[in-house]
Amino acid sequence: MDAVTVAESRPKGDVEPLVQLAKPDMAAVDALIVERMQSQVPVIPLLAEHLVSAGGKRLRPLLTVAAARASGAGEDIGASRKLAAAVEFIHTATLLHDDVVDGSNLRRGKTAAHLIWGAPSSVLVGDFLFARAFELMVETGQMRALGILATASSVISEGEVLQLTRAHDLNLDQDTYLRIIAAKTAELFAAAAEAGAVGAGADEEAVQALRAYGMNLGIAFQLADDALDYGGASATLGKNAGDDFHEGKVTLPLLLAVARTQGRDDAFWERTINQGQRTDDDFRRARELIIGTGAIGATLDTAWDYAAAAQHALKPLPASEWRDALEQLADFAVSRAA
Amino acid sequence: MDAVTVAESRPKGDVEPLVQLAKPDMAAVDALIVERMQSQVPVIPLLAEHLVSAGGKRLRPLLTVAAARASGAGEDIGASRKLAAAVEFIHTATLLHDDVVDGSNLRRGKTAAHLIWGAPSSVLVGDFLFARAFELMVETGQMRALGILATASSVISEGEVLQLTRAHDLNLDQDTYLRIIAAKTAELFAAAAEAGAVGAGADEEAVQALRAYGMNLGIAFQLADDALDYGGASATLGKNAGDDFHEGKVTLPLLLAVARTQGRDDAFWERTINQGQRTDDDFRRARELIIGTGAIGATLDTAWDYAAAAQHALKPLPASEWRDALEQLADFAVSRAA
Repeated sequence: MDAVTVAESRPKGDVEPLVQLAKPDMAAVDALIVERMQSQVPVIPLLAEHLVSAGGKRLRPLLTVAAARASGAGEDIGASRKLAAAVEFIHTATLLHDDVVDGSNLRRGKTAAHLIWGAPSSVLVGDFLFARAFELMVETGQMRALGILATASSVISEGEVLQLTRAHDLNLDQDTYLRIIAAKTAELFAAAAEAGAVGAGADEEAVQALRAYGMNLGIAFQLADDALDYGGASATLGKNAGDDFHEGKVTLPLLLAVARTQGRDDAFWERTINQGQRTDDDFRRARELIIGTGAIGATLDTAWDYAAAAQHALKPLPASEWRDALEQLADFAVSRAA
Repeated sequence: MDAVTVAESRPKGDVEPLVQLAKPDMAAVDALIVERMQSQVPVIPLLAEHLVSAGGKRLRPLLTVAAARASGAGEDIGASRKLAAAVEFIHTATLLHDDVVDGSNLRRGKTAAHLIWGAPSSVLVGDFLFARAFELMVETGQMRALGILATASSVISEGEVLQLTRAHDLNLDQDTYLRIIAAKTAELFAAAAEAGAVGAGADEEAVQALRAYGMNLGIAFQLADDALDYGGASATLGKNAGDDFHEGKVTLPLLLAVARTQGRDDAFWERTINQGQRTDDDFRRARELIIGTGAIGATLDTAWDYAAAAQHALKPLPASEWRDALEQLADFAVSRAA
């Protein structure tokens, strides 16, 4: 298969170097997160902790502290750590609301919060975390960083609404699709890195470099996720594979496969995506079509282009182990699906 | 009936003097609201306009500009107008989310947005308006005002969650109930006034006076609303009367009536509130018990106390037609239910 051949010639990258470098910073960020999600209203910390303790890689706040460190400014990391905690709160709030919006059953391998505490609590605790994010930002006194994350928040919700209204549309063009993931996913990566650099007092060139890195990384990351939802380039399916298809959500692998099977499999796509009638066998069939047409490989090729753009964006930064680690992260964002 | 007797000896107050004084300011605020709810994603302005054009009195942004004017600072009203628009966006966002949380059918006399565009859109457009509120605040460069409204936002969601988890609890004590409405309603009145004063460069005494005014006004306003939900002191029922009862929501008139009918009507309250079994006749019966025990009158007496506290809080401000209009508003907040 094409995708596998291409993937094997690519660097693997790794997230570990960055995780190791950022360990002391992220311990401080984690402490802030736990401290600031407390409330006298008992269900709030319970629900928030359910998601926060499930962990995940905390990629977005990791970007914020890494950007502060890699920018070469290195003044005071305190503001950037608070901004990092704010970024994680914004992300957690959007996850809580997304799961309600999509009716998802699982999040980070655990039962989705709205199925335990109800959708109303998920909506309101999301609001609480969003507000707490802004309280943390206010404490830094960094109005520019605050503006970056406020704008990111409105762009994210615009992206979510756009996806919601166009999610089942097989006529979605590739540009609109990229616009959706730039808004709903990559904008927060970009803002997380940009705010971290601004918080550390980086110069304008470094700020713009880190924003561009975050934006390209975010798109690469989302495209790899989209590929993974159909098993990526490997033969084995991950635990959440099929979620997009089962929700009738149109992503790049699907769009490419539809275009490449036009005329031949229209009725299948029309029924499963546009009309939302999906039997148990349909995911298998969709996956065969997507893999058979090389749509996974093509999606990952596009993802590699964005990863390369992310790495290129880092060039103006001073050489450092932080910059190297960010380069490695860009490869890893895609290779995990290849 | 007690309530009527007491009410008739009270001043009526009026909201019109304030509305007239603030007309030019509110025209500018309205223009900002319309401008900043725009988005390239079509459903966002559509849904936002559904609520915004339905109007209502825009009491909260009115408080923001009135506080700026009444504070005697009167420097530059531009920042306070932007803060006023931000306040209305925060309020609209909470209305959108509340209606999803409560499953309400009507809002400002129109079909609730989630019944037209779906709950997912209501959740996400609420998030969008909330983010836009912070973008507007960032533009003012007023970090302190931003902090006031960020904290208000987290307090509001805490109040909503507290209400959600305690709403059907007949053992709710009066203090906890007042704590809920202070958080979910009065905090935004307080923050709206405080931020307006801060935005206009008012001195600390005026800022604290206006915050105290907003807090007391908000509690008076909510208690009057709670009384109105059972028809207030008048014999005729307003168009949304019965909403709280039908949602099984415990408010002060109900809590007082339950306490006053203890031992006699326990089974009725247990069935209708705790167990949520409500027939069509139950609201009529609940209302009879509430009126019969004087619980409406007692609720309005408490509301009058808060209105008086709001007026007293204004004392440190320089005498002006704005201060007079705010005094009149406090009476009006309660007299509309008396």
